[in-house]
Amino acid sequence: MVKVKTITLDIPTKGDTDIINITGEVENALHEVKLKEGIVNISLVGSTGAITTIEYEPALVKDLKELLENLIPKQKRYCHDDTWGDANGYAHLRSSILGTSKTFPVCKGKISLGTWQQVALIDFDNRPRQRKVILQFVGE
Amino acid sequence: MVKVKTITLDIPTKGDTDIINITGEVENALHEVKLKEGIVNISLVGSTGAITTIEYEPALVKDLKELLENLIPKQKRYCHDDTWGDANGYAHLRSSILGTSKTFPVCKGKISLGTWQQVALIDFDNRPRQRKVILQFVGE
Amino acid sequence: MVKVKTITLDIPTKGDTDIINITGEVENALHEVKLKEGIVNISLVGSTGAITTIEYEPALVKDLKELLENLIPKQKRYCHDDTWGDANGYAHLRSSILGTSKTFPVCKGKISLGTWQQVALIDFDNRPRQRKVILQFVGE
Repeated sequence: MVKVKTITLDIPTKGDTDIINITGEVENALHEVKLKEGIVNISLVGSTGAITTIEYEPALVKDLKELLENLIPKQKRYCHDDTWGDANGYAHLRSSILGTSKTFPVCKGKISLGTWQQVALIDFDNRPRQRKVILQFVGE
Repeated sequence: MVKVKTITLDIPTKGDTDIINITGEVENALHEVKLKEGIVNISLVGSTGAITTIEYEPALVKDLKELLENLIPKQKRYCHDDTWGDANGYAHLRSSILGTSKTFPVCKGKISLGTWQQVALIDFDNRPRQRKVILQFVGE
Repeated sequence: MVKVKTITLDIPTKGDTDIINITGEVENALHEVKLKEGIVNISLVGSTGAITTIEYEPALVKDLKELLENLIPKQKRYCHDDTWGDANGYAHLRSSILGTSKTFPVCKGKISLGTWQQVALIDFDNRPRQRKVILQFVGE
């Protein structure tokens, strides 16, 4: 019998492209809802963050920050900053490119990730935030 | 009882990286299908557009167009253009990088977006288009 | 009656940003599970590949490889490479930017793609790999 189960995570971040491994939280939630087969949609609520996967080790986390700084620099002057004066145009743009939401399969009671693949929340905003991540499980 | 409901949107665009806020259309569709808990998959049908989220205000919309122009320039000569003569290689590439499809949670009858977060259709193609966007609701 | 059906694909790749059209495999799986209305989540298991859509023709496939080489060069020295000595930092970064997982609607027994839109697996890793792609069908 297919069902829907919702778990909301509250994750504190340091902002400034803080990359946080949330795989453990997702696995705990999966254990709680007892889904065996289905999908989990992982969505950060907001317009200055992202959800993606990464091999979560310090060197690669640093590489990803540097890459994003090269592609979408923080210090560049964006129209959004001129209009709103909040200096986080880069954060919005990084969010639109990476996406705030990803969906993964759940098979035999486990989220299907590779050995070196973790789920990461990224907070691009220019200040610490309390982030809401919704885990929407659909399956049986 | 989990069910599937499909709503198809027909959205006219100006092309040339036209960024269109479709949040209202998604909310109307959600109201129509009366989903309370579940997910909505939002998919642009085609290979020269994208679905993403953005704080939909004019300055940031302009910033996103400029960013895409810097990362994947329209005027650059792409192999695809030489082969097909349709000069929209940049549009295909932007679509492959951003993705044509995103999925969001529906909780308590509402799509879970942040206060400043809207769903945007982007049409990168080099001419006005009539775009089909499929909203696939799964839940109860 | 909504159900969940799982099909696992095993796809051999050449690595080195090998871009492979897997639309036929997805359509065959859809035929096998007999889903009429719903969604299909397509997930590459691993941290050095991606799933996206593209007009799958040789010129555009070449364009996408060149674009990725410009944005996230293979030869650049990444911290991850210094730490682990496996020289595939670029592959991890490309994977985090493009995403390993995409979800598409299934309507009237067909995956809803545009005429020129195909589903592609990309293997960025620096060696041939045997890749596992999970197709998770949810619907009726």
